[in-house]
Amino acid sequence: MLFFTQCFGAVLDLIHLRFQHYKAKRVFSAAGQLVCVVNPTHNLKYVSNRHAVGQTSTEQSSLHSHHPHETVHDPQLIPCTCPLFSCQWKGHVEVVVSHLRQTHRINILHGAEIVFLATDMHLPAPTDWIIIHSCLGHHFLLVLRKQEKYEGHPQFFATMMLIGTPTQADNFTYRLELNRNQRRLKWEATPRSVLECIDSVISDGDCLVLNTSLAQLFSDNGSLAIGIAITASKVHAAEAEI
Amino acid sequence: MLFFTQCFGAVLDLIHLRFQHYKAKRVFSAAGQLVCVVNPTHNLKYVSNRHAVGQTSTEQSSLHSHHPHETVHDPQLIPCTCPLFSCQWKGHVEVVVSHLRQTHRINILHGAEIVFLATDMHLPAPTDWIIIHSCLGHHFLLVLRKQEKYEGHPQFFATMMLIGTPTQADNFTYRLELNRNQRRLKWEATPRSVLECIDSVISDGDCLVLNTSLAQLFSDNGSLAIGIAITASKVHAAEAEI
Repeated sequence: MLFFTQCFGAVLDLIHLRFQHYKAKRVFSAAGQLVCVVNPTHNLKYVSNRHAVGQTSTEQSSLHSHHPHETVHDPQLIPCTCPLFSCQWKGHVEVVVSHLRQTHRINILHGAEIVFLATDMHLPAPTDWIIIHSCLGHHFLLVLRKQEKYEGHPQFFATMMLIGTPTQADNFTYRLELNRNQRRLKWEATPRSVLECIDSVISDGDCLVLNTSLAQLFSDNGSLAIGIAITASKVHAAEAEI
Repeated sequence: MLFFTQCFGAVLDLIHLRFQHYKAKRVFSAAGQLVCVVNPTHNLKYVSNRHAVGQTSTEQSSLHSHHPHETVHDPQLIPCTCPLFSCQWKGHVEVVVSHLRQTHRINILHGAEIVFLATDMHLPAPTDWIIIHSCLGHHFLLVLRKQEKYEGHPQFFATMMLIGTPTQADNFTYRLELNRNQRRLKWEATPRSVLECIDSVISDGDCLVLNTSLAQLFSDNGSLAIGIAITASKVHAAEAEI
């Protein structure tokens, strides 16, 4: 077991070595695994939400009166699922991915198993690291968020959400794995749908949660490598066969 | 994967069912696994340490002048490793286990893979759940602690320490696993030696850390089942063969 852990540690070292040499390339492969370098983005949505709380009710009502969602009544339209910005866009679930890519410049990565390499972990909260992960015929939104749930004590929250309905999400299992310095932390769960709010997933703590000290133990040079794998459940696999 | 997770969930349900029926028996087996029911103990050491901070320096110096450790100079003697009480006992590492069992009434359990079932998770911090786990020819101290590292925000910390030297500890890997409601959290690491202070392991966060919300997600009826496995590293296995 220790030998296996050491081997995985060596793979991560290799990843970081390649990262040093090929910084210009943002996606590369190491030891057969696809590595995606993900830069942080300051979370403007969370900041503006907090700012909104401080606004007077008059200001808020004047803002709401211009809110575009009051003019849209199609129940099949869903709001923008980007966790970073308060975006007023609405559209059908099929076009969410192209909206996220084009408007919010979120990268997309293909492959069932990838390594998500989040850089600059030291940046202050609120900060998000986001990619779209495409596999098994679906798109998943992977979000790592640094947030101060308790003031003065930032924590890291990592979760995966299916760009689809909750029923579709039930057909998958995702795994997030950290491995460094003879330590391994693994989280496995059914992904939530983007139709559910990511903020509530994080406030419920129903995701991989890391204290700053634990995140530092798994980081190397300020970067955190998270191994990601998605599998289809038996029911889904049987449906695919039919 | 989802199927496997569901199976493990069913095993945990079976454990809890048996727990309801055989509450009198504190150790039983479910689905081939040995389950140990561990009751909480209020941590008097942590409370008395916090209380000591409030004492005047005069009081502290008068306490220290009577401290037995000043009269013992044998470097091979180690202090009591019980995380619960401020115990003045000192002795050789070979007799630590019998001291913990006889004086502090800590239960001992044999087997490479066991389930640690901590009851009454709702009790206020500081509270500890402790057993001695005996396997592979060694004794390990398993500690689950509820502590308020940040005031008003209790967290759970779980770790395993070898009753032996740090060099001996390097020969093992321990795994703690939580599995419930289609979620799984796994922590793997090399155990620390009891010669290192458990309080520093917890303050460093170098262990399995759970927020209250995450602990509730994995709990059933106020009890948390932690699957435990210990393996010997290759080096140690080779030594055993010689």
